[in-house]
Amino acid sequence: MSNQVSATDPTRNRILFAGMELFGRKGYQSTSIADILLAAGAHSGSLYHFFPTKQDLLLAVLEMYRDGIEPMLLAPAWQHVADPIERIFALLASYRRALEQTDCTYGCPIGSLALELHEPDPPVRELLAVNFLGWVNHVRLCLEAGRQRLPRDVDTDALATFILTTMEGGVMQARTHRSLSAFDISVAVLRDYFKRLESDAKGEHR
Amino acid sequence: MSNQVSATDPTRNRILFAGMELFGRKGYQSTSIADILLAAGAHSGSLYHFFPTKQDLLLAVLEMYRDGIEPMLLAPAWQHVADPIERIFALLASYRRALEQTDCTYGCPIGSLALELHEPDPPVRELLAVNFLGWVNHVRLCLEAGRQRLPRDVDTDALATFILTTMEGGVMQARTHRSLSAFDISVAVLRDYFKRLESDAKGEHR
Repeated sequence: MSNQVSATDPTRNRILFAGMELFGRKGYQSTSIADILLAAGAHSGSLYHFFPTKQDLLLAVLEMYRDGIEPMLLAPAWQHVADPIERIFALLASYRRALEQTDCTYGCPIGSLALELHEPDPPVRELLAVNFLGWVNHVRLCLEAGRQRLPRDVDTDALATFILTTMEGGVMQARTHRSLSAFDISVAVLRDYFKRLESDAKGEHR
Repeated sequence: MSNQVSATDPTRNRILFAGMELFGRKGYQSTSIADILLAAGAHSGSLYHFFPTKQDLLLAVLEMYRDGIEPMLLAPAWQHVADPIERIFALLASYRRALEQTDCTYGCPIGSLALELHEPDPPVRELLAVNFLGWVNHVRLCLEAGRQRLPRDVDTDALATFILTTMEGGVMQARTHRSLSAFDISVAVLRDYFKRLESDAKGEHR
């Protein structure tokens, strides 16, 4: 009960969104408690009340990403896209928009945290992994929905993992080059792979 | 001349290798000056003589990676592999070994630094980008050498970029899951893509 009350407390939410924004933009280690208090317009007493340590805030941010994957990420990306394979490319396009809107400084907050934190504590690593697995699972469901367009021997779980690989590797290079080019190239090559998969699937049905 | 002398100074080299090891294992921001001095067995006077700031050491480490791509990375990976396409997979296998030997905590130091440093100063970002471009260029040369096995419309530069994407995205997930699985899956799907490319190229020659 007390958890439910605190989960909707406006001050807690302001701190949570400030942490989400700062960890994504500046990184976890570069974000100070002072940064969080300033961005949230909160006092240190409130911060320590809701999040005794910075890691507690990080865990809450990662839980918010985990719970937000459908309402915050997929629903907006898929609003006008019904085709299951096109939904995958629409999801990738939403990362492109994030890169474009931030001059290629912001891509995937989970990927950044995964590589920034060299030896994350087990609960942090667990939540990073859960976020990746949630993403992969939603993509896998798209692939399952488009199953008849893929060759019979395609493992949809493996292909979904590979699509996350493509997104993360593309975002990393785009951020480093401060240019969308490597991201666009990665998505275009993935498109070519799908084109060949769909063509091979047609061959099987002949 | 003084640069040449200092570039081979044994104390400078000890500091440089300590920085390389620590930035790769712990990350840049988590590595303290004290960590570097301890690992290098050096005094702070020597450190500041050769590298006035921690960023100067980072730049020298990134230059060492840039200059070391052939002798340190490619030569060992390609020692017993002549086939140009197989050289690409041998290069990927060398990252797998790094992951395996470190319980999946260490993969690609350039990728880690690229995502750890959220707003890297221009000279740092430039050297991260140069490292990526050097890697992609070597892979592109492999693809050029195996050109006749690929369909005519394949852009070898784009495909080389995509192979870096695959490596970096796979390493990121392997580190997060502390398991080789997502890396192995990513490489296996890339293999499948190559299989279909080579099969389509044979079709063109018929």
